Amino acid sequence: MDRYLLISSDCHAGPLPNQARGYVSPKFRNAFDTWVADVKGKQRRRAEHTGAAIYGEEAVKDFDVDVKDQGSKMAGAWDSKQRLEEMDRDGVVAEVIYPGASIETITPFDVGLMTYQYPQGAYNRWLAEFCAEVPGRRAGVGLITVDDIDAAVSEIRWMRDSGLTGGIVLPVDTNGHPYYNHPRYEPLWAVCEDLDVPIHAHVGWTPNYGDYKGSLGIFLSEITWWGRRSFHFLIWSGVFERHPKLRFVMTEMGQDWVVPELADLDKKYEMPMFRHMRRELPRHPSEYFARNCYMGAAFMARDVVEMRHEIGVDKLMWGSDYPHIEGTWPHTAEKLGVAFAGVPQAECQQMLGGTAAEVYGFDVDELAKHAAEMGPKTANIGA
Amino acid sequence: MDRYLLISSDCHAGPLPNQARGYVSPKFRNAFDTWVADVKGKQRRRAEHTGAAIYGEEAVKDFDVDVKDQGSKMAGAWDSKQRLEEMDRDGVVAEVIYPGASIETITPFDVGLMTYQYPQGAYNRWLAEFCAEVPGRRAGVGLITVDDIDAAVSEIRWMRDSGLTGGIVLPVDTNGHPYYNHPRYEPLWAVCEDLDVPIHAHVGWTPNYGDYKGSLGIFLSEITWWGRRSFHFLIWSGVFERHPKLRFVMTEMGQDWVVPELADLDKKYEMPMFRHMRRELPRHPSEYFARNCYMGAAFMARDVVEMRHEIGVDKLMWGSDYPHIEGTWPHTAEKLGVAFAGVPQAECQQMLGGTAAEVYGFDVDELAKHAAEMGPKTANIGA
Repeated sequence: MDRYLLISSDCHAGPLPNQARGYVSPKFRNAFDTWVADVKGKQRRRAEHTGAAIYGEEAVKDFDVDVKDQGSKMAGAWDSKQRLEEMDRDGVVAEVIYPGASIETITPFDVGLMTYQYPQGAYNRWLAEFCAEVPGRRAGVGLITVDDIDAAVSEIRWMRDSGLTGGIVLPVDTNGHPYYNHPRYEPLWAVCEDLDVPIHAHVGWTPNYGDYKGSLGIFLSEITWWGRRSFHFLIWSGVFERHPKLRFVMTEMGQDWVVPELADLDKKYEMPMFRHMRRELPRHPSEYFARNCYMGAAFMARDVVEMRHEIGVDKLMWGSDYPHIEGTWPHTAEKLGVAFAGVPQAECQQMLGGTAAEVYGFDVDELAKHAAEMGPKTANIGA
Repeated sequence: MDRYLLISSDCHAGPLPNQARGYVSPKFRNAFDTWVADVKGKQRRRAEHTGAAIYGEEAVKDFDVDVKDQGSKMAGAWDSKQRLEEMDRDGVVAEVIYPGASIETITPFDVGLMTYQYPQGAYNRWLAEFCAEVPGRRAGVGLITVDDIDAAVSEIRWMRDSGLTGGIVLPVDTNGHPYYNHPRYEPLWAVCEDLDVPIHAHVGWTPNYGDYKGSLGIFLSEITWWGRRSFHFLIWSGVFERHPKLRFVMTEMGQDWVVPELADLDKKYEMPMFRHMRRELPRHPSEYFARNCYMGAAFMARDVVEMRHEIGVDKLMWGSDYPHIEGTWPHTAEKLGVAFAGVPQAECQQMLGGTAAEVYGFDVDELAKHAAEMGPKTANIGA
């Protein structure tokens, strides 16, 4: 094949409030209307943290988006047809879809990647239909709360039955409940292993730093740590030991920390105290990473491509971060050419779609038909 | 001089409960007695996380301490005479003293490095007398709570008047108050700059991980991050810009993270959004580190010695961690010989005492008289 089968492991979508309303349960609809009326101020505050403010005027120009009116130019976040056209032009044949698409689509009740204290069903129902519009090419990642684990388990079963094949996002903030070494989460791990549902950590939530000096810098300094915090809890509490088939994907949180972090965890594991714990945790942390974990490597940078053998070529799943300005869309092929220069094409294909196809169960033969027409040319990417 | 002037930037001391009682204000004494009666269970739980359980039988044997009866062998934590003799034999001429000495001496009401919800005056009063027993050789680091900033400022003034020259420890847990980018802390930064009082971050506190699987591994994986978390807040909120003479010391939290961390913060600082903030924060994070920050490098390892030029030879202050088993005591000279092999002696002296003498205002001429008798021989350490 002279084109890559390109799957993005990190894209974002979400309904506008007026699209979402119909998916909200009648009993929550009044609360939803109140929330929508209040959301404009929140959007304004968020807007200061996005677009040109972060990425600079030049990046915005290159992105061809007027950030003052970002919503209308980012309609692919909620418009299925526009999204498909833009994906096709960008060479992406299939995608994994998270919430958090744009400031207009934080999704009902401000759920998404940031907060988790409201029922998530409305977003999941919308997402299931959004994915069903393009069968086989959209793996939607559903949302859960951890307020009620039985309810979360039911929601996960519903997702599976409804064609949401992306798995779930684990809330970074557990809304006052104990964190992820607590036995209360055991049914969650069990159902995800049984139903082959990948669990994701995705950056987004941090504590509220207030409207004080330095908050944005602090936010940027801490967001990755908060995003991957659950990794420590799952590793050490033996979740991967008790659930050997469970798959855990860490997305859009950089990948350059992985190798030193695993070395550090392995070093700790070799401390004498762990002798007593090796019956419950017989493998080194790096072994669980190699068996159970993956990286959703949004806009994988050159330095990470160079680390691929240390991290594991089969652990890295490239992502475009569509429709976010910091991602590779709408210049994906060109940016892949730079990032993957000199990399053997078999390795490129693994990172650009091979592993994602396995993790999310995409039908590669079906996708190959589309990729033959629209995929980025192998001649321009890798060696 | 043929001997180093050796200052430990990281030692620990604290009174036994019966020694502490007299320092506790009468109004808190009943509560103190209740706390003491309850503390045995806490000690037992802590004991599982110390000594042989962490460091292994061999380390304990080498340390010559029976951990089953660790208290009596660690009496230097609260016995001034024994402490001085052991320090002398180990070649340490002066020291910076933190709480958290041993499980017997968590100090009244469990304050110290772990929790901060009770008044700290009893510990500070005990520490002032403990330091005064050996004039010029003990810089005690006092404790504050951040529940009442005016009270903290008064306590800092009292410390300075009472000969506690070590400065203060900044609580890792702010007991529900906003974290350190909030303007409520401004009087604290101001008084510490005015009175030349160093502010310390020292590892110790983490969230409570519960008695669930993996808690110890999670604790070890997160303790350094929690310990140094305030660094982000001080850097980004401009505390060092507004208080150019303020000194911030990060102690017993490893040092190998410093160079990549500063590179990462500098990279963030260069993002376009910070253009708008450069009036308030005109310098790169690494510049504030170079001007305002120091590392209390407990048992500085060989790999950190090799990074000394990247971190800054004048930023690193060696520490023995006396009387903790994981430190260099009672084999300091021998361990320094290994860690500092091949390092020019002028650099050794800077890291082994020169910078600490400046930061804590030790009288070097006075100390030199003692060092001439007991300091580790220069012939055996460095090149």
